[in-house]
Amino acid sequence: MPKIIDVTELILRDAHQSVMATRMATEDMAPACEDIDKAGFWSVECWGGATFDSCIRFLNEDPWERLRAFRKLMPNTRLQMLLRGQNLLGYRHYEDTVVDRFVEKAAENGIDVFRIFDALNDIRNLQRAIAAVKRTGKHAQGAISYTISPLHAIKGFVEHAEKLVALGCDSICIKDMAALLKPQPAYDLVKGIKEACGRDVRVQVHVHATTGVTMVSLMKAIEAGADGVDTAISALSLGPGHNPTESLVEMLEGTGFDTRIDKKILLKIKKHFQKIAPRYKEFISNITGVETEIFESQIPGGMLSNMESQLKQQKADDRTEEVLAEVPRVRKDSGYPPLVTPTSQIVGTQAVFNVLMGKYKILTGEFADLMLGYYGETIGPRNPEVIEIAAKQTGKPPITCRPADLLKPEWQDLREAALALPGCNGSDEDVLTFAMFPQVAPKFFSTRDAGPKNLSKDPNAEPAAASKQGAPGAIQDGGKGPVRTTITYDVKLNETTHRVTVSPV
Amino acid sequence: MPKIIDVTELILRDAHQSVMATRMATEDMAPACEDIDKAGFWSVECWGGATFDSCIRFLNEDPWERLRAFRKLMPNTRLQMLLRGQNLLGYRHYEDTVVDRFVEKAAENGIDVFRIFDALNDIRNLQRAIAAVKRTGKHAQGAISYTISPLHAIKGFVEHAEKLVALGCDSICIKDMAALLKPQPAYDLVKGIKEACGRDVRVQVHVHATTGVTMVSLMKAIEAGADGVDTAISALSLGPGHNPTESLVEMLEGTGFDTRIDKKILLKIKKHFQKIAPRYKEFISNITGVETEIFESQIPGGMLSNMESQLKQQKADDRTEEVLAEVPRVRKDSGYPPLVTPTSQIVGTQAVFNVLMGKYKILTGEFADLMLGYYGETIGPRNPEVIEIAAKQTGKPPITCRPADLLKPEWQDLREAALALPGCNGSDEDVLTFAMFPQVAPKFFSTRDAGPKNLSKDPNAEPAAASKQGAPGAIQDGGKGPVRTTITYDVKLNETTHRVTVSPV
Repeated sequence: MPKIIDVTELILRDAHQSVMATRMATEDMAPACEDIDKAGFWSVECWGGATFDSCIRFLNEDPWERLRAFRKLMPNTRLQMLLRGQNLLGYRHYEDTVVDRFVEKAAENGIDVFRIFDALNDIRNLQRAIAAVKRTGKHAQGAISYTISPLHAIKGFVEHAEKLVALGCDSICIKDMAALLKPQPAYDLVKGIKEACGRDVRVQVHVHATTGVTMVSLMKAIEAGADGVDTAISALSLGPGHNPTESLVEMLEGTGFDTRIDKKILLKIKKHFQKIAPRYKEFISNITGVETEIFESQIPGGMLSNMESQLKQQKADDRTEEVLAEVPRVRKDSGYPPLVTPTSQIVGTQAVFNVLMGKYKILTGEFADLMLGYYGETIGPRNPEVIEIAAKQTGKPPITCRPADLLKPEWQDLREAALALPGCNGSDEDVLTFAMFPQVAPKFFSTRDAGPKNLSKDPNAEPAAASKQGAPGAIQDGGKGPVRTTITYDVKLNETTHRVTVSPV
Repeated sequence: MPKIIDVTELILRDAHQSVMATRMATEDMAPACEDIDKAGFWSVECWGGATFDSCIRFLNEDPWERLRAFRKLMPNTRLQMLLRGQNLLGYRHYEDTVVDRFVEKAAENGIDVFRIFDALNDIRNLQRAIAAVKRTGKHAQGAISYTISPLHAIKGFVEHAEKLVALGCDSICIKDMAALLKPQPAYDLVKGIKEACGRDVRVQVHVHATTGVTMVSLMKAIEAGADGVDTAISALSLGPGHNPTESLVEMLEGTGFDTRIDKKILLKIKKHFQKIAPRYKEFISNITGVETEIFESQIPGGMLSNMESQLKQQKADDRTEEVLAEVPRVRKDSGYPPLVTPTSQIVGTQAVFNVLMGKYKILTGEFADLMLGYYGETIGPRNPEVIEIAAKQTGKPPITCRPADLLKPEWQDLREAALALPGCNGSDEDVLTFAMFPQVAPKFFSTRDAGPKNLSKDPNAEPAAASKQGAPGAIQDGGKGPVRTTITYDVKLNETTHRVTVSPV
């Protein structure tokens, strides 16, 4: 009897977030849900990440309504979401009772499996969310943000897994957002976790496809004992996305491993998404090949193009090489954070500032916060001289406590502010929407009654729905989704004023 | 010490044949050759397959001159070609002395490694070419055309490998043109060959990427003892092409296997081909994702679209499902040939004929030849009733001998015919060009003095060089390159005349 490998299907969340800028509307997903529900997936990731933001910013869709729709359409499938620990789906730390309430409401509306991660792998940023999930009785999956650096090694990741298990996680996810996980480390990491945490601890592997090596990493992870893997149906796979589900199913034939997935149903689902994909053509990633440069440079593709565009704005294109050489130094000074959003943008922008205006002459607010500990603990020590500059520039002290410990209860204030907005329906869900996106929620509440912007009434119509201007000045989650408005700095140095705009990665 | 895995780089032949219709001109390859020569490849496939045809048909390039240019530009690298056994690079069987002369001339002009295959794996179609290579002292690599069918199994492929070794082959290639080789069979097949033929027999694995599983197959083949693999630099990889060379190099890190390849040089080569690729944009395959349907249907993508276009011409689009169901039956009746060109086209067209005009009411000339043994022996028995129909329709007897045994010496006739052509330079190379492409060579000889059609003088220029009309009515090698003119049949059945055109796969 072959060992059954569980598959988490990503097409309803990370796949379209990675290859079509998170723009897919619920109505284009709904027709495939019956088949997805029957195909035999262990779970379907369909909520969280940048989809919440995209719903209210571009699609005039209530994300809570989307979740309830999925729940009805896929009654037999575990619905899964991606949760950024203490950040929830927003971009700051939230006070603990807000975290509790979000998890309760997500569970109540339909989420079965919560995948919870922190960009810095600071366990303290994860513990409250994990505890909240446990209280709901749902599945808490603790995720390791995988990266490579001189300090990151199998041992440290395994220790992080042990901490996640100690917090009560029902499973562990190795989350490789930048396609850095090569076959041998994949094997060693899964084996290490199984040995340290026990064979019964469920291990799931999430990889992107960008570097062209990670399908092999999935195979080696499975050979090492991984219980489940993430893939996306081929209509929205590869490039910055994921390995194709169909290929995974075929790959395992005769190996002693098997999925329980119905290939005929996969083909139907593929055909559905192939049909609707052209409606989103202006959002579809034009990166279809592989990029292996990241293994040498440590710099993800999205981060590189962002830095290049910053330099261009400054008419300093010729200094790209200097900036590329500066990135590893800034990363070292800041304690080797994984270079995923938001840290990739924070480190990259600081490298640009260092080259243009002198080393640490000016720190961005985010870089200062990172240096001072307001994002959490980094794997390596941070450069004390730069910490001092950060403290001086911001007037804030460095901290070593859990960042959220500094927050005061905020639910009542959030609730009052939300309820004062025209169109707010008074539910906890609306308060949470406002809490996470205070700049976007007011407009969304006021236009919600008009209903989702509609792409699919006319299959040949221009995608008027998903507003054409990308995320105006948004930065991205995992390098992909829209998250936050551009920041423009006027920086005066000696006699010259530099206007520096920090734009989407 | 890690075991060194030899890499054959495909970008100068199969990669552009597979993803840009064989159109790349020598002048766009030449600037990269110095780097390719230094990168550390075991060999560089750069000649044969459909490139010869493409040179004279589209590029006004002398293929022999291209080979001599490669020899000068890459003095330190084994130059490799793909040879279709007794067919050479043409589309019929050649008499033995023509085969001998072709091999001699190819060796003399620069080829070091001859990869020799036959679509039916009929060893008799390979033996003369292998013997000719051995006489030149060059490397003879015998290839197994990999396919799946109810009759194809590891054992048969291993036996074919043993026969190739017995003929003196210096190495064995597993050649998987349709990306059908899954990881476990890849492992079993390499292991089987090593066990049967001896550990010292060099095994090379050639796979395409279409189904998304074959990077894993390369890994498993390497684990089973494969000595070398084929890849293509990422600028022209994936889709109907091959796995990316850069990803292979990265994939092996820490595994106990290593290539000797310089990653910095790979990046330079990649950048060169990324720069020139847009000049060929109208020829670039628009299939960038994966296709796994072939595992179920047995029908390669190119063959499917060809059948659909035949049905459309007949206003019989609605009968596609019937034709798809007919293909496996026709394949069975014809002894389970591998479905690669030319057999994919022969079987597919016959399936269309069967559905439109009644089962085996009309046979194409090619299908009749296949049934009668004129392409060689098939793995399975052929249906005697259909053989009888073929014999009746063509007036030709079924044969069991080696097809080339029926040919009379033809060199003198070919030579006289070639030398009579305006522009023929009288060399054996020109005679061979004429022998393989008697319809194209006359025009080429007459225009050769004008020199290669030039794409790269102006990097922004329209690719006027590579004639825009695809191969007008060409069919393809391995589903890719141009090979032969469309055949139109007027078929009268009862009172109706059907015009059936057999067009490019």
